[in-house]
Amino acid sequence: MSNTFGKNIKVSIFGQSHSPAVGVTVYGLPAGQTIDFDQLQAFLQRRMPGRGAFTTERKEPDVPEFIAGLNDGVTCGTPLTAIIRNTDVRSSDYDQIKDVPRPSHADFTAHVKYGNHHDVRGGGAFSGRLTAPLCIAGGICLQLLKQKNISVAAHIKQIGSENDQSFDPVNVGEKDFGTLEKADFPVLDKDAGTRMLEAISTAKQAGDSLGGIVECAVTGMPAGIGEPMFDGMENRLACVLFGIPAVKGVEFGSGFASAGSKGSEHNDAFIIKDGTVQTRTNNHGGILGGITSGMPVIFRVVFKPVPSIAMEQDSVSLSRKEEVKLKISGRHDPCIVPRAVPCVEAAAAIAIYDALLD
Amino acid sequence: MSNTFGKNIKVSIFGQSHSPAVGVTVYGLPAGQTIDFDQLQAFLQRRMPGRGAFTTERKEPDVPEFIAGLNDGVTCGTPLTAIIRNTDVRSSDYDQIKDVPRPSHADFTAHVKYGNHHDVRGGGAFSGRLTAPLCIAGGICLQLLKQKNISVAAHIKQIGSENDQSFDPVNVGEKDFGTLEKADFPVLDKDAGTRMLEAISTAKQAGDSLGGIVECAVTGMPAGIGEPMFDGMENRLACVLFGIPAVKGVEFGSGFASAGSKGSEHNDAFIIKDGTVQTRTNNHGGILGGITSGMPVIFRVVFKPVPSIAMEQDSVSLSRKEEVKLKISGRHDPCIVPRAVPCVEAAAAIAIYDALLD
Amino acid sequence: MSNTFGKNIKVSIFGQSHSPAVGVTVYGLPAGQTIDFDQLQAFLQRRMPGRGAFTTERKEPDVPEFIAGLNDGVTCGTPLTAIIRNTDVRSSDYDQIKDVPRPSHADFTAHVKYGNHHDVRGGGAFSGRLTAPLCIAGGICLQLLKQKNISVAAHIKQIGSENDQSFDPVNVGEKDFGTLEKADFPVLDKDAGTRMLEAISTAKQAGDSLGGIVECAVTGMPAGIGEPMFDGMENRLACVLFGIPAVKGVEFGSGFASAGSKGSEHNDAFIIKDGTVQTRTNNHGGILGGITSGMPVIFRVVFKPVPSIAMEQDSVSLSRKEEVKLKISGRHDPCIVPRAVPCVEAAAAIAIYDALLD
Amino acid sequence: MSNTFGKNIKVSIFGQSHSPAVGVTVYGLPAGQTIDFDQLQAFLQRRMPGRGAFTTERKEPDVPEFIAGLNDGVTCGTPLTAIIRNTDVRSSDYDQIKDVPRPSHADFTAHVKYGNHHDVRGGGAFSGRLTAPLCIAGGICLQLLKQKNISVAAHIKQIGSENDQSFDPVNVGEKDFGTLEKADFPVLDKDAGTRMLEAISTAKQAGDSLGGIVECAVTGMPAGIGEPMFDGMENRLACVLFGIPAVKGVEFGSGFASAGSKGSEHNDAFIIKDGTVQTRTNNHGGILGGITSGMPVIFRVVFKPVPSIAMEQDSVSLSRKEEVKLKISGRHDPCIVPRAVPCVEAAAAIAIYDALLD
Repeated sequence: MSNTFGKNIKVSIFGQSHSPAVGVTVYGLPAGQTIDFDQLQAFLQRRMPGRGAFTTERKEPDVPEFIAGLNDGVTCGTPLTAIIRNTDVRSSDYDQIKDVPRPSHADFTAHVKYGNHHDVRGGGAFSGRLTAPLCIAGGICLQLLKQKNISVAAHIKQIGSENDQSFDPVNVGEKDFGTLEKADFPVLDKDAGTRMLEAISTAKQAGDSLGGIVECAVTGMPAGIGEPMFDGMENRLACVLFGIPAVKGVEFGSGFASAGSKGSEHNDAFIIKDGTVQTRTNNHGGILGGITSGMPVIFRVVFKPVPSIAMEQDSVSLSRKEEVKLKISGRHDPCIVPRAVPCVEAAAAIAIYDALLD
Repeated sequence: MSNTFGKNIKVSIFGQSHSPAVGVTVYGLPAGQTIDFDQLQAFLQRRMPGRGAFTTERKEPDVPEFIAGLNDGVTCGTPLTAIIRNTDVRSSDYDQIKDVPRPSHADFTAHVKYGNHHDVRGGGAFSGRLTAPLCIAGGICLQLLKQKNISVAAHIKQIGSENDQSFDPVNVGEKDFGTLEKADFPVLDKDAGTRMLEAISTAKQAGDSLGGIVECAVTGMPAGIGEPMFDGMENRLACVLFGIPAVKGVEFGSGFASAGSKGSEHNDAFIIKDGTVQTRTNNHGGILGGITSGMPVIFRVVFKPVPSIAMEQDSVSLSRKEEVKLKISGRHDPCIVPRAVPCVEAAAAIAIYDALLD
Repeated sequence: MSNTFGKNIKVSIFGQSHSPAVGVTVYGLPAGQTIDFDQLQAFLQRRMPGRGAFTTERKEPDVPEFIAGLNDGVTCGTPLTAIIRNTDVRSSDYDQIKDVPRPSHADFTAHVKYGNHHDVRGGGAFSGRLTAPLCIAGGICLQLLKQKNISVAAHIKQIGSENDQSFDPVNVGEKDFGTLEKADFPVLDKDAGTRMLEAISTAKQAGDSLGGIVECAVTGMPAGIGEPMFDGMENRLACVLFGIPAVKGVEFGSGFASAGSKGSEHNDAFIIKDGTVQTRTNNHGGILGGITSGMPVIFRVVFKPVPSIAMEQDSVSLSRKEEVKLKISGRHDPCIVPRAVPCVEAAAAIAIYDALLD
Repeated sequence: MSNTFGKNIKVSIFGQSHSPAVGVTVYGLPAGQTIDFDQLQAFLQRRMPGRGAFTTERKEPDVPEFIAGLNDGVTCGTPLTAIIRNTDVRSSDYDQIKDVPRPSHADFTAHVKYGNHHDVRGGGAFSGRLTAPLCIAGGICLQLLKQKNISVAAHIKQIGSENDQSFDPVNVGEKDFGTLEKADFPVLDKDAGTRMLEAISTAKQAGDSLGGIVECAVTGMPAGIGEPMFDGMENRLACVLFGIPAVKGVEFGSGFASAGSKGSEHNDAFIIKDGTVQTRTNNHGGILGGITSGMPVIFRVVFKPVPSIAMEQDSVSLSRKEEVKLKISGRHDPCIVPRAVPCVEAAAAIAIYDALLD
C-alpha cells in the first residue's frame, strides 16, 4: 500500500481513522514557498465534520502540526510532513463490523486482503478521515497554484435527483469562484441548493443516504501541461480523484454525453481571441491528447450514496459463514457530497501542481 | 514522457505513427510464461484497420517481432520487447497540419508542448497506432489471466444514439464472452448492432463521425486485489484506460447513475452463495475501497466522436495567428468504437494482471 | 528531494536536525507483523549519542512514537509512520554557519541548492540525526529478517590506522555476531578495539577527528535474491548505504583488492557442501550478476573523518565573497564510526528485506 | 527485472546476448535535441570487441537503428528507442553451461532465480553485450552534457599490479581528456599503459585473466546538483555503475584511503578563486551531502578479473548435484577493463544528465 500520488511532487498519506494520528508527507516541494496557515485552516474547515445539521456529529479541530520541512514557516527543500491527531475516537463502536461487514463499505474487501490484522476501527485506512491529510496537501497546492494565477473551484452539481446549473465551460471564472468559496453549501443556483438540502434532510429522517456529482473547473491553466498516454492530465486527475472514498466515475468535458454526439457537433473549433489560440466551445474539457489546451479544465466526479444507513440491511457473519441482519449505529452523514467539494479541489490541485513541474 | 504503466509489471510504449516502428517493452513478466502467438495475432487482428467498410483504409499486417525477453518462445525473466514496423506511411498527407491544427485532435497541444520538434506525421505519438503495442502487451496479459481463469471481455454499449443491452452485472460470464470474441461487431443484441452499423454508415456518407461507449466485464476475479487510495483498482484501471486516445470518461458499477440513487437502493447486500461471500446486486462494480470483492468488475468507457471529419472546419494558422478554414483529407474511421473494444480489453488486462502481482 | 528508498517496501525519511520531529514512513510492510518494541529500542540505543566519553554530548531519549500503521502493536497493512521529537535543540549555535560554510560539510552545497531557505540549524536534513529514523526502519527490517533466519551484523574494520580482523567470508556466523551485538565497541579483536579507542581519544585531545571502515556480513541469505543490471543487490545496497552521511565508498567481497588478482585466484569454485551448491571461497561477496549466491553477503563501507574539528580552518564568507577563518564550537564526535555500525546494519537490512519481496 | 535507471530521464535496457536484438529506450529526453550520429558511433566503437589482439574475437558492427523518438534526426519528445541486432551468435557454444555453472559468472545465481527458463546463451541478460545499449544512452547523454560544457572522461587506473597516475583532483581537465579520448588504450602515463598491455598479454598466454580499476572525472559540473540521502550524486552514480558487469566497488574522492586520514588532513578548505567559491583540495570528490560542490567529480570503479579463464576449474553439475571439472572454451577477453572505460563514462553521463534535470 503506497498511498502515494505524483511524479514530481509525491503526496503520501498515512494513518487510520483511529490510529494516534493521520498525516501527509509532500516530497519535492521547491524550497522557499511560504504557506499561509490561516488560509489553509480555512480550507480545511470546509471539509470538517460538524458544520451543519446534516453532517456527522463527530467534531475534531483538525489543526495540522507541521513536524518537518519548514524553516520559519517557509519550505526548506526537504519533505514536508504534517500530522493531525485523532482525538475523538470511540473504538467500542466498531466491534460488530469485524465479523459482519457493512454493505458497500470496504470492510469485507479489507478483511479478505489483510485478514484479522485490518484496522477495522472507523474504517481504518479506508475512512473519509484520510481526506483530511489529502486536503492539507491539496490546500498547499491550491496556494501555490494561486500564485501562478491558476484557480481550482468545484460545486455540487447533483444530489439525489436535484441538479445545479453547470459551469459555463468557456467563460467559467472568478465571478463563480468567489461565491462558491464563501458558500456554506457550494452551488451556482441557490434554489437548487435549497432543494438539495431538503432532499438530504428527508433522507436523514428516513435513515437513508444520497449520492451526488461534483463538478470542478480549473482556470488560468497554461496550455501544454500533461503528457501523452498514461501521464496525461486525464489519467493523473482520474488517478488522484478515485483516491477519494466513494468516487465511482470521472468524466472530462462533455464526458459520457459525447457518446451521443457527432464529430461535427463535438469538435471544438480553434479561434483567435485576445491574441491567443482558444476554442469556440469546450467539449474537450481543456485537455487534448492528455495535454492542456489553455481552455478551462472541466470535469465531474460521481459519489455513490453513503453506504452507512440506519435501516436494517442484509449481510453475513464472516466467522459463521451465514447470512445475518445488520443495523449500523453511530454517527454518519446522510450525504458526504458537500464535504467532498474541497476534497475534489484538493485532489485536482495536487495533480495539476504536480503536472506543472514536469 | 514516460508512456509507462504499472507497478509490478511495467508496460512501456514507444514509437510514433510514422517512425520506423512502434513497440512495447513489458518489464517484470515472470520467467517461464509461454505465449500463444497465434492467439495473440488473432487478438491483434481485432483492432486492425481495414476489417470492414467503415474503418480506415490503411492496411498493415501488424505482426509483432519479439526482439528480447524470450528463450524458445518462453519468457526468460528479462524485459520483453516487441516491435511492429510502420510500413504504410505517407508523410506528405500531413504537411498542412503542422500549421493548422485539426480541431479536437492533439495537434495544437502537442505544438505548444514540443514546438516544431513535435512529430506531426500521422498524429505522431498521439496516434491510435500506439494502441497496437498496447494490444500486444494486453494480449499477453489476457493469456496470462486466462490461465488463472480470469476473463476480460467488452462490448459496444452505445454508438451515437443506438444502445446495446448492458451486461448483467451479477451473472455476466462465458456465455456472453464466447459470442463477443467471435463477433465481427461485438454487441450483445444483434439488432442493436445492425442499427449501429447503419448509423456509422450514415455518418460516413455525411462526412461526419460518431462516438460511443464500451462496457467491459472481468469475471473470475479473486477478492482482495487492489489497494486503498491511489493504487485501487479503479485508479489503476482509469489510469490505463485514459491512455487510449479519445477516452473522456470512465465509470465503475452503477457509475454516474448512482448519483441519483439512495443508499438503501444502491447498497449491495452480502449473501452466502455457493459457500462464498457474494453480493446480491453489483452496483459497486466488483470494487469496494479500491479492492476487488470477487464479484464481476464492471466498467464503462466513453469515446468522443472521431475528430477527423470530412466537413470543412474552423481552425487557425499557428504561424500567422489568424483564423482559417480547414478541410482534412486522407483516410479516417467514422467511428473507432468497434476497434476500441479490444483496446479496452487490453488496457484492463494490463491493469488487472499488474494488480494480481501486488 | 524524495528521501525514499526501496522498490517493494519504501522507506521514506523526513525531518531536519532542529525541526519539531524527525521520522520515517515505511510503505508496503505486510499486514500481521509483530514488532518487538524493546528490541527495537535496544537497537536504537546502539546509535545513540552519549554512550561513551568519545561521542557527542547531546543527549536525547530517541523513543519513537508510532502514529500510524499499527493495530494493537501489529502492522495492519497501511503505511507505518514513526516520529521522534527533537527536544534538545540549541539553534543559536548555528548562526555563523549560515554565512561561513564548514569545510567538508554540506553547508555550502545546500546553500547553493536551497539558497537562504536551507535549514542550516544542526545541519538540517544533512544531519546524522536523520540516521535515527533510518534505524527505526532498519531495526524493524532486522527483526523481520531474523524471522527468516537472516542475520545482519557489522563491526569496525578500521579507525585511523588501526585495523580489526576481517570476517571470515565463508564461515562468518552467529559466533561472531553474538559478541558484536552485545559489545559497547563492536570489533572482532578486542586489542584492536583498545587501540582504536586510544586513537580516538588522542584525536579528541588534539581537536581532530578520524574516519574508518565498517565491514558488514549477512548470513542465512537465500540464493536467487536481487535482479540484474540496476536492481542488483550491489546497486541496492550501495544506494542505501551512500544515504548514510560521510560514506565515500562501498565494496563487495574482495572489492578493490580484486583489481590486483588474477581470475585463477579470484574465481570462487563451486562445491557441493551439506547437499547444497556453495563456493569454496567467497571473493564474490555472496553476489554474482546482482543476485545472491547463498554465500554470506560481505561488504565494506568507508566513512570519511568527521568534518567538524576544533582546530581553526580556512573557509569563506558567502555574503562577502572573501576568505575567512572558521572555528567550530559546539558538541561533536571525534569519530562517528562506532555509532555508524548500527546504521550500516539498518541500511543493509532495509535493502535486503526489500529485495526479498521482489 | 526493470533494467531501468533514472529519475527524470529513464534509461531502460532490454535484450539478451543471443536474442534477436539488444536495445535501449530513453524516456524523458527533451524535444529538440540533435544527436550527432557519427560522434555516437565513434563512442560506441570504443567499447567494441575486436579492436586489439587482447580482446574477444567476436566481431559485430554495433550500429544502432533508431526506431522511435526522432523526427528528422532530432528528438521529438517521445521515448527514444534504439536497437542493435545480434548477428554473430553461436548458441551451440553454451550447452554445457546450462548444467555446469562457470565460477564467478552469473550462471548459477540466474539458474536459481529463473530456473530452466534463464537464457543461458552467451550469458543472456548478464552479458557484457548489454553494455552496448548502455553506451548508446550514455553516448547521447555525453553529447547533451557537452553542450552544457560538462565533460566526462575516464582512464585505466590499474590493471593487475600495474598502476597509472591518478587524475589531479583539482586541476583535471581538457588537457587530460583530449589525450584519453583519442587513445587506443586510455592511460595518463604511456609507460604504465605499456606495462599493462604486457601484463594482459602474459595473462592471456597463461589462460588467465586480470581485473583493474577505472578512474573517472567529471569537469564543468555546476554546484548544487544532486539531493540528500538516497538521491545524492554518490547514490545515483553507484547505482548505475554497479549495473556494469564485474564492478565490485565504487569510491568517491579519497574513497577508502580516507579511513586512515584525520579530519584536519581530509577537510577541503573553502577558498575564493576566479571569483567563485572553490576548495583548495578535493578529497570530497566534488560531492558534499550528495550535492555537487562545483569541483571535479572524481570516482573510481573496480572490476574483478574476467571469470572466463582457459584453465580447468572446479564446478558442479546442477542436475546431478556432484562436483565436476569445467573447461571453458570459446572467445573471451583476458581483461575487459580497457573496454569498460567508455562504459563507465556512459554510466556516469546518464546519472549526471538525469540529476541535472532534477
